[in-house]
Amino acid sequence: MNESLTYKGAGVDLDAAERAKRSLAPLLDAVGDENTLSGLGAFGGLYAVPGGMAEPVLVASADGVGTKLKVAFASGRHGTVGQDLVNHCVNDILVQGARPLFFLDYLATGDLDEGVVSAVVGGVARGCSENSCALLGGETAQMPDFYGAGEYDLAGFVVGVVERSRILDGSTVRAGDRLVALPSSGLHTNGFTLARTIVFERMGLTVGDPFPGESATAAEVLLRVHRSYLETVWPLLEEGAVSAMAHVTGGGIEGNLPRVLPEGLGARVDCATWTPENVFRQLGDAGGVAAREMYRVFNMGVGMILVVAPEREGAVLAALGGDGWALGEVVRGAGVQLEGVE
Amino acid sequence: MNESLTYKGAGVDLDAAERAKRSLAPLLDAVGDENTLSGLGAFGGLYAVPGGMAEPVLVASADGVGTKLKVAFASGRHGTVGQDLVNHCVNDILVQGARPLFFLDYLATGDLDEGVVSAVVGGVARGCSENSCALLGGETAQMPDFYGAGEYDLAGFVVGVVERSRILDGSTVRAGDRLVALPSSGLHTNGFTLARTIVFERMGLTVGDPFPGESATAAEVLLRVHRSYLETVWPLLEEGAVSAMAHVTGGGIEGNLPRVLPEGLGARVDCATWTPENVFRQLGDAGGVAAREMYRVFNMGVGMILVVAPEREGAVLAALGGDGWALGEVVRGAGVQLEGVE
Repeated sequence: MNESLTYKGAGVDLDAAERAKRSLAPLLDAVGDENTLSGLGAFGGLYAVPGGMAEPVLVASADGVGTKLKVAFASGRHGTVGQDLVNHCVNDILVQGARPLFFLDYLATGDLDEGVVSAVVGGVARGCSENSCALLGGETAQMPDFYGAGEYDLAGFVVGVVERSRILDGSTVRAGDRLVALPSSGLHTNGFTLARTIVFERMGLTVGDPFPGESATAAEVLLRVHRSYLETVWPLLEEGAVSAMAHVTGGGIEGNLPRVLPEGLGARVDCATWTPENVFRQLGDAGGVAAREMYRVFNMGVGMILVVAPEREGAVLAALGGDGWALGEVVRGAGVQLEGVE
Repeated sequence: MNESLTYKGAGVDLDAAERAKRSLAPLLDAVGDENTLSGLGAFGGLYAVPGGMAEPVLVASADGVGTKLKVAFASGRHGTVGQDLVNHCVNDILVQGARPLFFLDYLATGDLDEGVVSAVVGGVARGCSENSCALLGGETAQMPDFYGAGEYDLAGFVVGVVERSRILDGSTVRAGDRLVALPSSGLHTNGFTLARTIVFERMGLTVGDPFPGESATAAEVLLRVHRSYLETVWPLLEEGAVSAMAHVTGGGIEGNLPRVLPEGLGARVDCATWTPENVFRQLGDAGGVAAREMYRVFNMGVGMILVVAPEREGAVLAALGGDGWALGEVVRGAGVQLEGVE
């Protein structure tokens, strides 16, 4: 005789989903603001368009954490990938001049471990809070024969706003403009498929092993949180000191800087102006990765590039204190010349 | 001697990613509108807040397709899951009175098969177009040791807008209000972990086998596109004829209708008012699933429920033509009584 089937028996536990949802309520409540009009349980999150703007333009971006998640799985450290995700998304709209309004996450798991879900969403909430951004909602999906036990994927969506006249679209960028670099905090969320191959196969490390040249484990080095540049850059944007900005993600400096330069302009980047952090040097050496390939896959220590008019460069560097440096300049032509990289 | 490593060798092909991105450009261009200010390649998508509203409120929702994707993988039919996703998200904000402005997708794959990516994103674009919603951007992630060959996850995010005074928040719902049902188009995107267990294990069908009681294959029945209720319901919302709406997703009628009823009110649903479609009867019979469980896991033929004042019911039903029916009423108490279901 055939046993009668249930949803729970097939692997989906609606009660556990309800409990997980309730346990997330305080996280969501803590990350609203005066424009957040909806509570938990609504089909959609409600957010009032901020007043006082002449022509508000919404700026939206979707992203994932990529296989950096695999390092979280292997080390059981699930608390910071949510911050990576929020910060990545926030940077992607910041480069167009927008500040974030709200964020939603998509978390898909095999087994909906409540501790893991709450650690991951807790990280998302912390990321939102640090960027003064409401966590307006999200979806936690149970997909038992899709994701392995203890595994999940995490994606997120941010919506920000910018006054139309202040959109950074690169249209004021001219040849001779200066490039100012802001340092990354490690790999951020790019290049992890290659980085993991080098660290766990070529170097033969486990997540708990000390990372060469650092007083930190491999997991700690690889999981360093993707930096948000909002707080650093916002005062400069308010002053109108920045003509364009590029977030250095997949594709590296070469892949991202041209995205914000007008047709007919390229960039000269002087790679002697900084020394990539230890993690990049170790990955390059242990993997025998060609220098050009390293600069295409990883940020190499440059997380964000500001394009500023020559007469602004001094003031921008002074405002950044030790946090930024003169990286190069905008030139006629196309693409990026990485000077000093074979 | 150690071979020197490359990103492509580790499984991530940046050139293929660039080609996939370019091949998607016409899809995105075709699904913009006059408020879409950004083109492909921007870090974030730009969308002007529509003018002419007193207090515009944004309504946002994130969702995935769940394990309905497994049916797409098994059958190689990738063209409609994007529509499922968009329609699901659109319905989730429609129930709060919002019409969609724009959508972003997150597609994570193992091997970035260009044909599959373009079929999936093509479906997303078609869904956006059918809902008069801009496809503002998205992320296509290559995660080679995360997703198997030919497998992917797909999530999406919609932002809509509603005039603040017209938000459907259930506050005008009273005991005695009527429930009007709108039919679903099959399973929509819920209950697939159980449905697949029944169809492929208990019934022993393959995706290409005829589905019992239908002139369609198992894949065709299971992949029927999640219906968007925007076009049907929008004229009723503009007239102010609807007090609340519930989208019947995971958790069924019982799990979703109470989400839009004020404290102290419940609902009486008369299950003799309709006959669930063949697919629900076959799943229940073959799986030996208890009737209560069926109504908790599946929509059972009711995709959307409108709550209307008693004096509006006749006009609403007349406006819907044969598309809706009188389902029950709002009562004092809590929860949902499913009359006629043991």
